[in-house]
Amino acid sequence: MSVITIERKILEKNDEIARINRESFQRQGIFVINIVSSPGAGKTSILECCLPRLQSQAGVAVVEGDVQTDFDAQRVARYDVPVVQVVTRGGCHLEARLVQDAVSRMDLSGIRLLVIENVGNLVCPANFDLGEALKVVVLSTTEGDDKPLKYPNMFLQSSVLLINKIDLLPYVDCDLQQLRQNALAINPELKIFALSATTGEGISDWCKWLLKNCATPDAMKTDHSVEAT
Amino acid sequence: MSVITIERKILEKNDEIARINRESFQRQGIFVINIVSSPGAGKTSILECCLPRLQSQAGVAVVEGDVQTDFDAQRVARYDVPVVQVVTRGGCHLEARLVQDAVSRMDLSGIRLLVIENVGNLVCPANFDLGEALKVVVLSTTEGDDKPLKYPNMFLQSSVLLINKIDLLPYVDCDLQQLRQNALAINPELKIFALSATTGEGISDWCKWLLKNCATPDAMKTDHSVEAT
Repeated sequence: MSVITIERKILEKNDEIARINRESFQRQGIFVINIVSSPGAGKTSILECCLPRLQSQAGVAVVEGDVQTDFDAQRVARYDVPVVQVVTRGGCHLEARLVQDAVSRMDLSGIRLLVIENVGNLVCPANFDLGEALKVVVLSTTEGDDKPLKYPNMFLQSSVLLINKIDLLPYVDCDLQQLRQNALAINPELKIFALSATTGEGISDWCKWLLKNCATPDAMKTDHSVEAT
Repeated sequence: MSVITIERKILEKNDEIARINRESFQRQGIFVINIVSSPGAGKTSILECCLPRLQSQAGVAVVEGDVQTDFDAQRVARYDVPVVQVVTRGGCHLEARLVQDAVSRMDLSGIRLLVIENVGNLVCPANFDLGEALKVVVLSTTEGDDKPLKYPNMFLQSSVLLINKIDLLPYVDCDLQQLRQNALAINPELKIFALSATTGEGISDWCKWLLKNCATPDAMKTDHSVEAT
């Protein structure tokens, strides 16, 4: 029982810092997304595809989370955006405190969109609020259409699902319609975009939706006027 | 500090049950592998490819670990092997106690090989000994060649690396030679097999190695006479 108590305290403390983060982001008018996925689903590749479009219309900053290495921050830095790499050294998720530390090192003046790229893990990051406006889960077609049912909590906690690597659909055992159906069975509110960071297909619709919500973050929960594919 | 103490106690308790599991498996002459990977890397598909070959030469039993659903156990059951599904209901890894419970429900007479398929997670299962003879990490080419450097502990804790989905190499940004080099930089002892559960390429070599070690589990750490590709 003592373990459960400790776990609850960790989450309570995290939630308190997440609340402070969220208030600070809202005060500064910064829209924050927390991108989560399995390792190698394409979080950084999608971001690289989006950054040129996003930057032309909004100030963007990035927090990269990884168990080890600063490879992702190096990739993102090429686009000349403020970026901080958080290395968890074995930790399986980002926590609100780490995000608080990271943004304290950044100049956020002029920033309208903050992208937090979480550690590659489809389980643990679901439980840790970072103070984001919404969680975006990335699932690649190569992972199979059953994953929303097998890892339901992440799909329940997310507001958006990006189905990546649709260019590989001819070569893998993944039914796109079944994938959508499985995801919506877990979370009927999920907004779904199918795209490919390799070919660029679908990227434009996702960027448009993101920028629209960036401009009016308060309307985020209800504004679905840019339709997902 | 109290959190760290609790964490250490959890791992100590797990290690103690893992030790009991290991002694029990050795006494019964059962070779046990613990398969770990990201979600969708192909653990179950590889197992499905191997089961007909393995069954013809050794009694095989399977423990399936998943956050939710018994899909994997259903797939494996088609091959007419004893299988128990462990559903962690949100838990991000299997623990020794869960394996102990699972095998207590199985008839292991005649079984020479027990395959434990862990929860899809490239971080947390690395820290939990289940009593296995060795950990086998599966990485698919679609995840990218940088993953051993980004998730080093799993590659350090494993004895074998199965590089799956080599049939997709023409379509993805993954350098097989670089992947091997990155994996061996983390763990120079790692035995590597490149294969495809879709085309069957490389499956035979992996099965041969496994059966050889199954026959002589004590020689496992030194016997490399079946060369990895």
